[in-house]
Amino acid sequence: MAPSRSTRSTKRVTHSREQIVGTAIAVLDAEGIKGLTLRGLAAELGGGLGSIYWHVEGKDQVVELACDELVGRALAAAESGEPGDDVPSPPLTVDLGTRDPAVLAAATTMRRIALALFGQMERHPWLAGQVQLSGGRPNGLRVWEHMGRPLAAMGLTPRQQFHGSTALLGYVVGVAAQMSTQDAVIDPTLDADEQLELVVSRWQDLDATEFSWIRSMAEEFRRHEDLEQFAAGLDLLVLGLVRQVSAEQ
Amino acid sequence: MAPSRSTRSTKRVTHSREQIVGTAIAVLDAEGIKGLTLRGLAAELGGGLGSIYWHVEGKDQVVELACDELVGRALAAAESGEPGDDVPSPPLTVDLGTRDPAVLAAATTMRRIALALFGQMERHPWLAGQVQLSGGRPNGLRVWEHMGRPLAAMGLTPRQQFHGSTALLGYVVGVAAQMSTQDAVIDPTLDADEQLELVVSRWQDLDATEFSWIRSMAEEFRRHEDLEQFAAGLDLLVLGLVRQVSAEQ
Repeated sequence: MAPSRSTRSTKRVTHSREQIVGTAIAVLDAEGIKGLTLRGLAAELGGGLGSIYWHVEGKDQVVELACDELVGRALAAAESGEPGDDVPSPPLTVDLGTRDPAVLAAATTMRRIALALFGQMERHPWLAGQVQLSGGRPNGLRVWEHMGRPLAAMGLTPRQQFHGSTALLGYVVGVAAQMSTQDAVIDPTLDADEQLELVVSRWQDLDATEFSWIRSMAEEFRRHEDLEQFAAGLDLLVLGLVRQVSAEQ
Repeated sequence: MAPSRSTRSTKRVTHSREQIVGTAIAVLDAEGIKGLTLRGLAAELGGGLGSIYWHVEGKDQVVELACDELVGRALAAAESGEPGDDVPSPPLTVDLGTRDPAVLAAATTMRRIALALFGQMERHPWLAGQVQLSGGRPNGLRVWEHMGRPLAAMGLTPRQQFHGSTALLGYVVGVAAQMSTQDAVIDPTLDADEQLELVVSRWQDLDATEFSWIRSMAEEFRRHEDLEQFAAGLDLLVLGLVRQVSAEQ
């Protein structure tokens, strides 16, 4: 006897959307974007393609949902304020030059959200290349909302708030994407330290007149860390925003 | 009679590397990265695949050379200082709060290089997604060198120079890449104004409590321009760098 329609429907919906997204994140972490296929995902989940198509339209949507899930985790971590919440917290690298508590609180909030996003993008290197943070997905919108509110609280004009929010999110996603790519392209057969030394030795071979400044950076590059570098640029933006408020008061 | 080896070699080298790169840029502008094939490029140049492989190893190298050519044009334009040199020059959006001529000159130079790169990335929308500006290609290195020198001239520490240069270039490439992608993804059947209105109307439908800030940005977004938005974030970074100098004096 053929199964009734309702039985077949029940059988199709073996996996929840959450399970699909969670498994997709694990596959993306292990295999990257190119390694994710709906067929492979179905095998991983122990079911057929049907139970995946029940929830999503295709691979692009799975990737979008996976991104939005991680962006949501970043925002939750940034706002939890719990110790051990997975938000990197490098010290501030600039002197903000203000004691205004509203401005300092706003700077702290923006910094935490940006660093929480960076943390997710470091853990999931495929993420940065995919994220259009201001896109239509719920957590993308939430992150933008929560990045924007402190800019309003600081007393910036609407135009300055808009430009400040897009600069911050553009910096976060853009720089993380470049760091993710860069780590992979130099020479995949070398480990991280060997790659670093290879780059440094290439710089030291550059023409001493034409590339005097890059040569002077070899030691800095050798000691650099992605998180510290990311935070330093972020802090320049935050400092710029804080000084923009002060200039008008 | 079969052609001698030297005749065949001469015949193979019909196109110069410059011709190949120039034609590749035109194809990339018209068709994007996916539209570029070596076979299509050979047809465009009116020759065979052999004369292309004489100069390059494959498609990736053609794209790299095309990127480096455009990065080189940006740097040349930034440094020519001629009117009509294709460098966008939006007014400074922040008060740098200094009259130190060395600092102001440095800020102007960094801004011009960043805006010249943005100009090339606006004209060639495929460019931003490809560029690893700190990569090994000659013009990529030159841009980094010329972005770094003003940071040294301002009196920043080596560490601040390193972080300042990577923040500026990371911002430039990251934000331009997002703007290039964003313009294409909303709905390709709508023109730019219709896409803008679609986004604005989606925002206006968001929950008034949860998304109060985004809703407040609808008018700003409607009037926004990519160049102005890009320059505003760039100016925040420049302001941050200038204040970093002042804080230490």
